[in-house]
Amino acid sequence: MGSVPSPAFASDNAAPAHPRALEALHRANDGSAPAYGADAVTQRATDALRDAFDSPGAEVLFPFTGTAANIIALASAVQPWHEILCSDVAHVLLDEAGGPVRLSGAQLTRLPSDDGLISPDDLDRRVARRGAVHHSQPRIVTITQSTENGRVWPAQAIAEFVDRAHALDLLVHVDGSRIANAIAALGVSPVEAIGDADIVTVGGTKNGMLFGDALLVRRPEQFSGIHFVQKQIGHLASKHRFVAAQFLGMLEDDLWLETAAHANAMARRLSTGMTDLGLHLASPVEANEVFVELDVDVHHAIARDYLVHQPDIAEPVVRFVCSWSTSDGEVDAVLAALRGLL
Amino acid sequence: MGSVPSPAFASDNAAPAHPRALEALHRANDGSAPAYGADAVTQRATDALRDAFDSPGAEVLFPFTGTAANIIALASAVQPWHEILCSDVAHVLLDEAGGPVRLSGAQLTRLPSDDGLISPDDLDRRVARRGAVHHSQPRIVTITQSTENGRVWPAQAIAEFVDRAHALDLLVHVDGSRIANAIAALGVSPVEAIGDADIVTVGGTKNGMLFGDALLVRRPEQFSGIHFVQKQIGHLASKHRFVAAQFLGMLEDDLWLETAAHANAMARRLSTGMTDLGLHLASPVEANEVFVELDVDVHHAIARDYLVHQPDIAEPVVRFVCSWSTSDGEVDAVLAALRGLL
Amino acid sequence: MGSVPSPAFASDNAAPAHPRALEALHRANDGSAPAYGADAVTQRATDALRDAFDSPGAEVLFPFTGTAANIIALASAVQPWHEILCSDVAHVLLDEAGGPVRLSGAQLTRLPSDDGLISPDDLDRRVARRGAVHHSQPRIVTITQSTENGRVWPAQAIAEFVDRAHALDLLVHVDGSRIANAIAALGVSPVEAIGDADIVTVGGTKNGMLFGDALLVRRPEQFSGIHFVQKQIGHLASKHRFVAAQFLGMLEDDLWLETAAHANAMARRLSTGMTDLGLHLASPVEANEVFVELDVDVHHAIARDYLVHQPDIAEPVVRFVCSWSTSDGEVDAVLAALRGLL
Amino acid sequence: MGSVPSPAFASDNAAPAHPRALEALHRANDGSAPAYGADAVTQRATDALRDAFDSPGAEVLFPFTGTAANIIALASAVQPWHEILCSDVAHVLLDEAGGPVRLSGAQLTRLPSDDGLISPDDLDRRVARRGAVHHSQPRIVTITQSTENGRVWPAQAIAEFVDRAHALDLLVHVDGSRIANAIAALGVSPVEAIGDADIVTVGGTKNGMLFGDALLVRRPEQFSGIHFVQKQIGHLASKHRFVAAQFLGMLEDDLWLETAAHANAMARRLSTGMTDLGLHLASPVEANEVFVELDVDVHHAIARDYLVHQPDIAEPVVRFVCSWSTSDGEVDAVLAALRGLL
Repeated sequence: MGSVPSPAFASDNAAPAHPRALEALHRANDGSAPAYGADAVTQRATDALRDAFDSPGAEVLFPFTGTAANIIALASAVQPWHEILCSDVAHVLLDEAGGPVRLSGAQLTRLPSDDGLISPDDLDRRVARRGAVHHSQPRIVTITQSTENGRVWPAQAIAEFVDRAHALDLLVHVDGSRIANAIAALGVSPVEAIGDADIVTVGGTKNGMLFGDALLVRRPEQFSGIHFVQKQIGHLASKHRFVAAQFLGMLEDDLWLETAAHANAMARRLSTGMTDLGLHLASPVEANEVFVELDVDVHHAIARDYLVHQPDIAEPVVRFVCSWSTSDGEVDAVLAALRGLL
Repeated sequence: MGSVPSPAFASDNAAPAHPRALEALHRANDGSAPAYGADAVTQRATDALRDAFDSPGAEVLFPFTGTAANIIALASAVQPWHEILCSDVAHVLLDEAGGPVRLSGAQLTRLPSDDGLISPDDLDRRVARRGAVHHSQPRIVTITQSTENGRVWPAQAIAEFVDRAHALDLLVHVDGSRIANAIAALGVSPVEAIGDADIVTVGGTKNGMLFGDALLVRRPEQFSGIHFVQKQIGHLASKHRFVAAQFLGMLEDDLWLETAAHANAMARRLSTGMTDLGLHLASPVEANEVFVELDVDVHHAIARDYLVHQPDIAEPVVRFVCSWSTSDGEVDAVLAALRGLL
Repeated sequence: MGSVPSPAFASDNAAPAHPRALEALHRANDGSAPAYGADAVTQRATDALRDAFDSPGAEVLFPFTGTAANIIALASAVQPWHEILCSDVAHVLLDEAGGPVRLSGAQLTRLPSDDGLISPDDLDRRVARRGAVHHSQPRIVTITQSTENGRVWPAQAIAEFVDRAHALDLLVHVDGSRIANAIAALGVSPVEAIGDADIVTVGGTKNGMLFGDALLVRRPEQFSGIHFVQKQIGHLASKHRFVAAQFLGMLEDDLWLETAAHANAMARRLSTGMTDLGLHLASPVEANEVFVELDVDVHHAIARDYLVHQPDIAEPVVRFVCSWSTSDGEVDAVLAALRGLL
Repeated sequence: MGSVPSPAFASDNAAPAHPRALEALHRANDGSAPAYGADAVTQRATDALRDAFDSPGAEVLFPFTGTAANIIALASAVQPWHEILCSDVAHVLLDEAGGPVRLSGAQLTRLPSDDGLISPDDLDRRVARRGAVHHSQPRIVTITQSTENGRVWPAQAIAEFVDRAHALDLLVHVDGSRIANAIAALGVSPVEAIGDADIVTVGGTKNGMLFGDALLVRRPEQFSGIHFVQKQIGHLASKHRFVAAQFLGMLEDDLWLETAAHANAMARRLSTGMTDLGLHLASPVEANEVFVELDVDVHHAIARDYLVHQPDIAEPVVRFVCSWSTSDGEVDAVLAALRGLL
């Protein structure tokens, strides 16, 4: 381990951009092009995302970040007297500085979960007080695939969850900032990983792009003002082709699933190594994140060199995230470092 | 029991106005007067509230409703990236249609509670993630005295809670839409019932007035825009004397505590009677509300005649509220009706 | 002129309450009643307002103030990417502290006007940029009857204006905080004074009530969340009968038009007297407000005794407002005072 | 003129990215790096911007777009009861879909202007009604350099304007999405082109970058929550180095001023050619935009081939924008096309 701390495991957004994402920028940089998405590259990226998710009727937006994609999705689904439901570890609840609430004006209510996996039964009670003017009206539930704790909704589970939500007259948003990791882990088609969700954040940044997360709006009629919301918070790119081009590049030859599968494999290698060291995993490792219990001394020592952190201050659990660029050598080095500290 | 259903126990806001509140309106209706609070009646009511709560430096506002008072207090305490903390049964969370969130743009986070009584220890963890730009920043905690479940914070408990919050750099709002019931129940001075809270909703409507709940702003420097917020949501009365006059009338000779003590006594009479009938109370009866477990058949029968309801659909608990106008006869009649149903 | 300044001409909200408004409160204060508008008095007041305005399908809300009524109307008509149009002297633009913008999140655009009377032609250009995602989308225009400058829209003019707005796919709100003054001045039926407007603020406070302005929602399907907005800003009264009862009292025997006609007559008496003194009126006097040009010395002297003010600091124009309670003697006294100052 | 329409003059955001902006991305794509701006590239870009604007104490933020930069600046300057002042042709007023109003909740008031140049005298009257709770409180004025109509504030004029605003206790924001064009046109140092402004949007996208506009916060104490606002609307890039790197690349060797000077020169060539054709310019050409009066037939014909448009539907004026990539040949071709149409 060198003397400069490495952020390699701090998050998958510490990774560099994939060479093919950069190449895509070069290919798109060809003379003048209409702004704001009226260009040919955007049209092709839109079609590619529709194809990838078997959603021919979907609208596709290309905001710059996953946080923006989530906020645009939720804010365009609700009125300020609606209620948004999420899990108790949701990124929209904990890590977006309250942006979804600020933009929507709507109450955001956390439901209990198993590492981000919500039981459909917990939806039933939430809708019981609908109708009366005194209460916020449940309108949409957002789930994360793979979850913030590195868990993956099995295809059947997410299908059932979405169907239950629909039966209760709730829309469903999937925060898929790591959707490729879930698809790769499940070995299913992309659409099976999202069930019949109404709107999906399709992550790009954490899976090899320089920037950009798409929004797949599978039921556009439920999000009628969504293009205005995107514009209103400055997420309608003027040189739009550069966001779109990267998605084109990553979708080509299923590169996005290859990079995600690699990240997942690295997380398995890391977690297996940790278990071999006698460490206890706080959550099953199902995608590209590893949550491991560490004594405070070990945590501080490893954090100094690897910039990893405890998501929840109250729990002695430290998060390691693998990415498309994580190498066997990097995994082995961090395992060696841990071995030295134990 | 007659054939017309009685709302007498549905809520204390089903009660009529106290004759002396009406008399106060007559006295105030004397020729022209400056609008928007620049009149003499408002000045006297302001002084009377400052005196009642031993808070000579407080600013006093007179919005029309308790919901408005709560929203004005919270919205003027926070920026949209702040977090507001409340109990899991708080009126601001469950019964204001999301108004506090809409107006403030801030995240509203529920803490576990014992019938609305929050442990100071639960505040500590909430402030742990302060500082980082990714997270909403805890700024104010709101508690209710007496609580939505009819409980009363003892003077020492609320003093300790407020002090702990202040030590954690949190402001404290007390939703006192039933503060008179708490003061009467505790037998302390008003200021002892609120601890060193920064801002207090002082209920009027539920305790005999026609309309109007005051805001006692004990630390005005923390709520610098509060007069604008009041105006912006249409709660700066033009004929301001009519809100203020009622407070004057109710504070005179401690009428407000007398009416509250009566409501509390009626709740004791009712709950004792229920216990004598073998019924189980869901919460201790400490102020003017009674929460009793009823079988669904009994609930439906009694609800048809008395318009009482289950606050939480999932629990077989029905709420009865007594007011300044509740009579022994009304209590005995509802007890007789219950006896007939059991 | 006595030594205590008189607010009698400062505004019509400086007036006391009409005795029959107070009587109505007494009549309504009869035992327990369901809260939040489920009572019989509210039902009767609702029917009375529907009848008065020949609008059998209208919903009726009873917020506490005109500012609130305006905000609820506008905020429930728009999404945050819509545009609200108003005149350059509109109360919603100048005198509600930005509340309509805060609540709606929508842009508020002023149109040129003749004392608040907007030309229908000025609507045409505003809708030209509709459609593109870069621009706020015009959705509703609000006009005031009688206007903030004391002008009255003739029946045919308001009918044509509303029809033009509808043809341009704009909703129309009428701020009728002084609608009775307009109706009385025009000598038409109430509905003729509002044209085919979609939603109307029906003033109560400025025309003899203690508090309360109604909202007549003539096209409820265009304001589907309006009851939630009312609740969210604390304007759903719990002891609802007391707002409604005053409207019942004022509508009975057309008392509201009688009080308004009296205020108008007093304004004519005042303005005629001013003209006789050689003063110049800044606007035609068509309802109960008088705008007169005064030298700064005269203005300061009269303002000291009568609390009247300049609505626009840049213009040497002072406003005098007459009310249901203004007497011949009061008018003559202020004219005498002016005579002494000139 | 070929058969495919060219967007080359539609806007400077139709231009491709400058090769050196792309190169900068490559250089920055070197292994893992801390996210959210804690990387070395961001630190260097921050220093470079501070140096360029002689503002050592400034904070620098790197949102993705100019619209976002403007919104973040304005929304973090105000409370919802404040008023934002702007010109009648301001981008924040006309072309951001109401985003500044939605985010801030504050009223946005247009001032008259000469092609976006506001007279300092027009500020005076706006502050006259400060203080009273009924009115929005003027807090910040935003101006654009160079303006939306292609005009440039001379150094002394902007200095005087900003000083006057400060004397009136108003903050000043400069929307500098084309600030480099102004600096190049004036031939002054960057800081002279912004006066003593408190916060400046420093354009990148329109001047050769793929995406990214910086915010130079010269008085950070007046914008204390600005980092939260940036995060809340999804404009805190995780792979932050890629926004920052482009600014580094463009600032190196004053490339940004060279590209801007080229765009300005092309606009001069174009406007001179138009004048030679007998066409009338609607505004003086001082930066990289040309506004020319065209008959409707000519406009439609040229718009079909060049995608240029009328900013204001009511005026027969068409906008042509030149960029870093505009060539002599492109200018001459459009002039030839115009000649053919006249």
